[in-house]
Amino acid sequence: MKREYCGVFGIYNHPEAARLTYFGLYAQQHRGQESAGIVTWDGKIIREERGMGLVPEVFNERHLGKELKGSIAMGHVRYSTTGASLIRNAQPFLARYKNLHIAIAHNGNLVNTMELRGRLEEEGSIFQTTIDSEVFVHLIVKYMNGNTVEDAVLRACKDVKGAYSLLLLINDKLIALRDPHGIRPLQMGRVGSSHVFASETCAFDLLEAELIRSVEPGEMVVVEGTSVTSYKMDIPPQPTKHCIFELIYFARPDSTVFGETVYTCRKEMGRQMALESHVDADYVMPFPDSGIYSAVGYAQQSGLPYEHAMIRNHYVGRTFIQPSQDMRDFSTRVKINPVKEMIKGKRIVIVDDSIVRGTTIRSRVKKLRELGAREIHFRVSCPPIRFPCFYGIDFSSKGELIAANHTIEEIERFIGLDSLHYISIEGLLKAVKKPDHYCLACFTGEYPIPCEGGGKMCTECGC
Amino acid sequence: MKREYCGVFGIYNHPEAARLTYFGLYAQQHRGQESAGIVTWDGKIIREERGMGLVPEVFNERHLGKELKGSIAMGHVRYSTTGASLIRNAQPFLARYKNLHIAIAHNGNLVNTMELRGRLEEEGSIFQTTIDSEVFVHLIVKYMNGNTVEDAVLRACKDVKGAYSLLLLINDKLIALRDPHGIRPLQMGRVGSSHVFASETCAFDLLEAELIRSVEPGEMVVVEGTSVTSYKMDIPPQPTKHCIFELIYFARPDSTVFGETVYTCRKEMGRQMALESHVDADYVMPFPDSGIYSAVGYAQQSGLPYEHAMIRNHYVGRTFIQPSQDMRDFSTRVKINPVKEMIKGKRIVIVDDSIVRGTTIRSRVKKLRELGAREIHFRVSCPPIRFPCFYGIDFSSKGELIAANHTIEEIERFIGLDSLHYISIEGLLKAVKKPDHYCLACFTGEYPIPCEGGGKMCTECGC
Amino acid sequence: MKREYCGVFGIYNHPEAARLTYFGLYAQQHRGQESAGIVTWDGKIIREERGMGLVPEVFNERHLGKELKGSIAMGHVRYSTTGASLIRNAQPFLARYKNLHIAIAHNGNLVNTMELRGRLEEEGSIFQTTIDSEVFVHLIVKYMNGNTVEDAVLRACKDVKGAYSLLLLINDKLIALRDPHGIRPLQMGRVGSSHVFASETCAFDLLEAELIRSVEPGEMVVVEGTSVTSYKMDIPPQPTKHCIFELIYFARPDSTVFGETVYTCRKEMGRQMALESHVDADYVMPFPDSGIYSAVGYAQQSGLPYEHAMIRNHYVGRTFIQPSQDMRDFSTRVKINPVKEMIKGKRIVIVDDSIVRGTTIRSRVKKLRELGAREIHFRVSCPPIRFPCFYGIDFSSKGELIAANHTIEEIERFIGLDSLHYISIEGLLKAVKKPDHYCLACFTGEYPIPCEGGGKMCTECGC
Amino acid sequence: MKREYCGVFGIYNHPEAARLTYFGLYAQQHRGQESAGIVTWDGKIIREERGMGLVPEVFNERHLGKELKGSIAMGHVRYSTTGASLIRNAQPFLARYKNLHIAIAHNGNLVNTMELRGRLEEEGSIFQTTIDSEVFVHLIVKYMNGNTVEDAVLRACKDVKGAYSLLLLINDKLIALRDPHGIRPLQMGRVGSSHVFASETCAFDLLEAELIRSVEPGEMVVVEGTSVTSYKMDIPPQPTKHCIFELIYFARPDSTVFGETVYTCRKEMGRQMALESHVDADYVMPFPDSGIYSAVGYAQQSGLPYEHAMIRNHYVGRTFIQPSQDMRDFSTRVKINPVKEMIKGKRIVIVDDSIVRGTTIRSRVKKLRELGAREIHFRVSCPPIRFPCFYGIDFSSKGELIAANHTIEEIERFIGLDSLHYISIEGLLKAVKKPDHYCLACFTGEYPIPCEGGGKMCTECGC
Repeated sequence: MKREYCGVFGIYNHPEAARLTYFGLYAQQHRGQESAGIVTWDGKIIREERGMGLVPEVFNERHLGKELKGSIAMGHVRYSTTGASLIRNAQPFLARYKNLHIAIAHNGNLVNTMELRGRLEEEGSIFQTTIDSEVFVHLIVKYMNGNTVEDAVLRACKDVKGAYSLLLLINDKLIALRDPHGIRPLQMGRVGSSHVFASETCAFDLLEAELIRSVEPGEMVVVEGTSVTSYKMDIPPQPTKHCIFELIYFARPDSTVFGETVYTCRKEMGRQMALESHVDADYVMPFPDSGIYSAVGYAQQSGLPYEHAMIRNHYVGRTFIQPSQDMRDFSTRVKINPVKEMIKGKRIVIVDDSIVRGTTIRSRVKKLRELGAREIHFRVSCPPIRFPCFYGIDFSSKGELIAANHTIEEIERFIGLDSLHYISIEGLLKAVKKPDHYCLACFTGEYPIPCEGGGKMCTECGC
Repeated sequence: MKREYCGVFGIYNHPEAARLTYFGLYAQQHRGQESAGIVTWDGKIIREERGMGLVPEVFNERHLGKELKGSIAMGHVRYSTTGASLIRNAQPFLARYKNLHIAIAHNGNLVNTMELRGRLEEEGSIFQTTIDSEVFVHLIVKYMNGNTVEDAVLRACKDVKGAYSLLLLINDKLIALRDPHGIRPLQMGRVGSSHVFASETCAFDLLEAELIRSVEPGEMVVVEGTSVTSYKMDIPPQPTKHCIFELIYFARPDSTVFGETVYTCRKEMGRQMALESHVDADYVMPFPDSGIYSAVGYAQQSGLPYEHAMIRNHYVGRTFIQPSQDMRDFSTRVKINPVKEMIKGKRIVIVDDSIVRGTTIRSRVKKLRELGAREIHFRVSCPPIRFPCFYGIDFSSKGELIAANHTIEEIERFIGLDSLHYISIEGLLKAVKKPDHYCLACFTGEYPIPCEGGGKMCTECGC
Repeated sequence: MKREYCGVFGIYNHPEAARLTYFGLYAQQHRGQESAGIVTWDGKIIREERGMGLVPEVFNERHLGKELKGSIAMGHVRYSTTGASLIRNAQPFLARYKNLHIAIAHNGNLVNTMELRGRLEEEGSIFQTTIDSEVFVHLIVKYMNGNTVEDAVLRACKDVKGAYSLLLLINDKLIALRDPHGIRPLQMGRVGSSHVFASETCAFDLLEAELIRSVEPGEMVVVEGTSVTSYKMDIPPQPTKHCIFELIYFARPDSTVFGETVYTCRKEMGRQMALESHVDADYVMPFPDSGIYSAVGYAQQSGLPYEHAMIRNHYVGRTFIQPSQDMRDFSTRVKINPVKEMIKGKRIVIVDDSIVRGTTIRSRVKKLRELGAREIHFRVSCPPIRFPCFYGIDFSSKGELIAANHTIEEIERFIGLDSLHYISIEGLLKAVKKPDHYCLACFTGEYPIPCEGGGKMCTECGC
Repeated sequence: MKREYCGVFGIYNHPEAARLTYFGLYAQQHRGQESAGIVTWDGKIIREERGMGLVPEVFNERHLGKELKGSIAMGHVRYSTTGASLIRNAQPFLARYKNLHIAIAHNGNLVNTMELRGRLEEEGSIFQTTIDSEVFVHLIVKYMNGNTVEDAVLRACKDVKGAYSLLLLINDKLIALRDPHGIRPLQMGRVGSSHVFASETCAFDLLEAELIRSVEPGEMVVVEGTSVTSYKMDIPPQPTKHCIFELIYFARPDSTVFGETVYTCRKEMGRQMALESHVDADYVMPFPDSGIYSAVGYAQQSGLPYEHAMIRNHYVGRTFIQPSQDMRDFSTRVKINPVKEMIKGKRIVIVDDSIVRGTTIRSRVKKLRELGAREIHFRVSCPPIRFPCFYGIDFSSKGELIAANHTIEEIERFIGLDSLHYISIEGLLKAVKKPDHYCLACFTGEYPIPCEGGGKMCTECGC
């Protein structure tokens, strides 16, 4: 499963704003490894540094200690698959309009970009990038005429549809916005006398910042000088629809999002699976590290011993030289390797958070059979994904999602398992506090916001 | 605890010898991250590529696919702390003597280097490096006069004292040697019609090679053409003295060394600790990843639930920008972060494999207290280290080893624990199959090979 | 004298358009060493690659052979001094408007940017960069409404004032534009069946392209498919005002610009100086390489021998480590070094094309005195610069131009010369074919286009 | 003609010894662009930094300002063609013997390396590299037994045959050695209270050091503390045989070597050619930059005007992307480009210092013909090279030297010239002060030192 979200971080009123933003992004690196960027404002000049790669690859001491001056800063980490000229699309996106400098860092996906863009172009706008954020900025500028910044932003929110948890830096203001459904997370905190915003609380922990609360769905928070002002968007009330994938596998287990401790939710999903599909076995183990927390819960509920018998190689980086053709299943083997003695003659329950194409799991299961495993039972802490997401997660394409095209029995047979169980939607919802606050569209096809022909996955939705 | 060993890998008779060596080193990266090198022989020309850094940083496709020609290859990964000019000391070390090309890759530490070197210099030898391997080569060349390569190597072995598991490539021969005490591991295997050697079996797993056996203490194995010949060194029998640190924390848990499955040993150490020092608590958790396997064993023996409530940040690389002064305990926080909800009001048993200076653990424990932990009990799966090692492990300096200078009670108080327990030597030995085959000098001060004034830590031994 | 111009190159209908553009820029590297960029169009997709540094540092074989697809391409080399975020300002500048992809590469400087920008922002435009090119694109888009691309471009030309020799790539069209005064050069040529454009003919020579003619002042040339169409701008006729600095020192001596062979002009300037200020001496020599061509002319006219007794170090790159404080005049010495034997007891005429602050020449002259030079006469092939340029040359600041603040006698004394002569404006004009076709504003202060408060040097003009 | 020599630099007693060595190498970069190295001694520790590439690529401020400590330093720049593992062969070469640290930097080529090496190996020596310097060090160590360093070095000099101008740093001593024939240059100078050595005086000029004298053929100079001691080698007197190629093209024109000003010699060679082969023509021009100085002399003697009508592109670096196949003669064109107007209808004398394979000149001449040149006469300031050099210059291989296999008439016809003249040996010798002090073996085949089967070009000498 391609994991595409983004992570944002912002800080207001700190002498080392850029440095703290660096660490805020560093802690959220799992939300995007493709590019990173930081923008600062020192009251007069806006400065930026963006680049392809991981946070420590993009920034150096000179950037943080010297160049990125100012006590207001915000940053962005990004993962995406959109073709050429990638650095151009790296965020934050910057623009100038009269005496205003506007920077935007956006997490989420709009569904009416194409339509908005067409309309703006009719009125004479030209575009630099293909990212949603640029459309947002054009709208703000369009409504600026005679209005305050706050009014212009709120007015722009009436036009856009889709998922957005975003930060704006407009001269002396740091503005946080969250769409009316609250699809992506956005946290608000405080460290000393500085206000901070982040996608996940793990960024706050690293900085020893205190979590205040989430930015609410449909809320705009404006920080300026010493004041923090909250605005409600002028939009009819919408049902809250958090993305449940943050809990299943996207957010870090030590984070709190949507008012939930991610670790606890995942452990509870493991428990639910143990209740839904008990099997007699010698032990439970995860495919590390994604399956660890559900496996812990599964072990506790089932009473089976927890083992950690697949060993992850911590030195596997993003790139390594490919082996020759005849080293079959190499990439499967290089990341995690079983402890042979723990496999032979054993009945094993394996827990993980997803099956995408099934081929990797298949070759791992085959290896375990060769080593003498007696029974292999697989438990997946995510219901079968059958529909695409238009709000920011890239399941790559329906074609690749094995569950979209195959029955459980077919998948079980393809992988070569003794049993396969996906957590039920009901079971999954038992693991969260407010079950009706979540978007389940990728399981059910019931989209809270209809596609309007502007999302980039529109070719798949059939609208 | 500085973790200094090295890793070696060799292969005989494979069309892609350099590529397989690359992967053999890749799987053993944990044994040395400072430098890496590969040497190949194509029947006429010896080729080498060495560099500072991780295996994928040192080698590229051009090296493996084009330049490092030949069906015999061997490689080395290294970690060390020896000052300037590091690339010069990177292995394999190469030398030429008449029509012979000699390459050597050494894991371990000799104790009479200084004396041997002095003797050789008296006879006119000059040296390029400060590594033990160069002394070994000089000895071999010295004994070559009128003798076979095999005789010369065996003769050299009579002179050297200390730990060595090493590979030699001398024109068409690949030679594996292990010191009479068998201090460091050295495995022998086979993939197709090729013979392979490695420090650990995890290298064989990655290549789908089959483990044949260990090279025996005091054995020389010579591979040439299709023949494999074993020689016994002409040295009085010595007691086997494996380094128990391979089992405690150095080797990968999925490896087999000294005939032991590392994973099982570590789990058993956890069990022993649970037997030695029971405490009533809410759950057991490791400091990841080093403590995982003992924690699993401890949980199983004690009946307490296993939790994984300290979360490791997988993007923490070797280098990152330092925070400003006032971000206290930053480096502690950046690597692992607790799940807050799991800490508040809980009685926790934490398991890890070592305490070096105690400061890191101290600040972690402090953090857990701030988050509301009710009781914190710490269990260490390694007896207190009180003496330096002269055979290849760098405990940095006695000054840094907290256990060498403090009582358990002092350490407990310093860290701020409710209880602290180090596994006993007896408990540790229950976790291995042949308890009298291990060197315990760093715990007891009883050295199987006396220091002869040539080891680099001689300044500490007082000889 | 800071040497700021830019160089452009474009090609239409060539299977290796990007590669030829690379070489077209390579030959014009002297026109800008700060950044380089290439844009290509393959009928569907516009691709770009831009970066800081020299042409061979920015592009690699993968860019040229694989990524920059398409048979239409254009590129830009740039030198500039405008602060931070330089990569953002690197050209070509790209924009999208409806289904049009617009790329622009601009050489020259507009004088009413600020006013145009203000007007556009009133109408809702937002800006990404601080470069003139972006303003040009906004104007084009603004006039696109219901008009053809050609009409829109011509309409935009009516609004802008200043110097521009520029290339536009708009979907299938390659458009060349030159301002009504013809301030910067722009050449048109042909190689096989491909049309090419370049700032200087040296780019054509490298590609073995044939020079057709200059794009005329006030002309727009549109290449599309197999047709080349010329348009006259709808602007009242303006006097031609070429920048004479192209001939004095900016263009390469093997180029033809403004219908002049640069080499011949420079040699003629040398001749004029020999006529204007004869002196009895042992020989004439240049400060290499800038003074070579005038020195050759001076020697021929005066009958004095030509010597080449200052030797240039060809390995002096852009960066080298600075010496310690006490190595006085190091940077003077490292670039060119005198042949001692040629200096002692000699009466020398030195020829060069400029004196900026005078300090470098002063320390060179001092060195020659120490080596025993009997007389030193200096001849400058450029009249004293007393006024800033608003059309694209950066004389850095009036403060640094020694001739703006000092009499010839003062400069002569400051440098320590036996005689100093600057070519007269009349002498300079004798070296060109059409003396009234040149802008002499930096010598006389008579600006052909008045500053309108929008040029970046406006702070200096006093308007 | 491949240009292989090397350059050395040494300094004794300077607080910034490494930094001055850096600049001493920088000024001598033309003597070797393949690798560079610096070694320093601070009274206790020897430090080194070597790398592939140009001097500014190998060293950074950290090396010079912090790491390379000590008031004694020496360095080496190298060009060579010897295969793989090049960094290993980069100089200075370092060795340790007992309490001595020995560093050596060698310019020249020994002719009995193979024999010496064989003898040393018989006695037990092993070798790290394939460079002559290592043999030299082994000999010194061999003779050290019971002797002073000075005696050992002088004793070693009795064994080696061939060309060597070399520097040794042995603990507190800096030693300069020059072979009895004085084949390569070696200068001695002083800056403040520091002693300096360099291959060429241009290194002294950059540091404002004063030239004292050449190290004499057969002399050893030892600097230690405040004393400088000269020793004569205990070898029967040999005729002085300087390499005349230093004057023809290798040394920098602003240097003094062998007591000759290089610039003056080259100009005189031009004069001699004008006397030897007059031709009526419109002007004389060089192929820049190698032909400049002889062309200046030729013009002065013949009375023809000097022109500089081939323009060199100063941005052509060592690497650039290759053009596609159909851009014939590209590499010829990219480096120097003719000024068209100066060629058409003209009778031109071209001067250069060499013809290697003739293909480059041929394509340049062809281009000049296409541009309308009426007559082209070529003058070469070096007699035809017919024999290989065993003392340090790489003419690549006789096969490539057009003059070794063809008559002048054949070459003239191949290139397409109206006339071709090589300077005569007699003419060449008129350009130097002591004509019988030069080795002319590459023109005549009369070798001052016979090949002893040890030089690397021995395969060509037929011995």
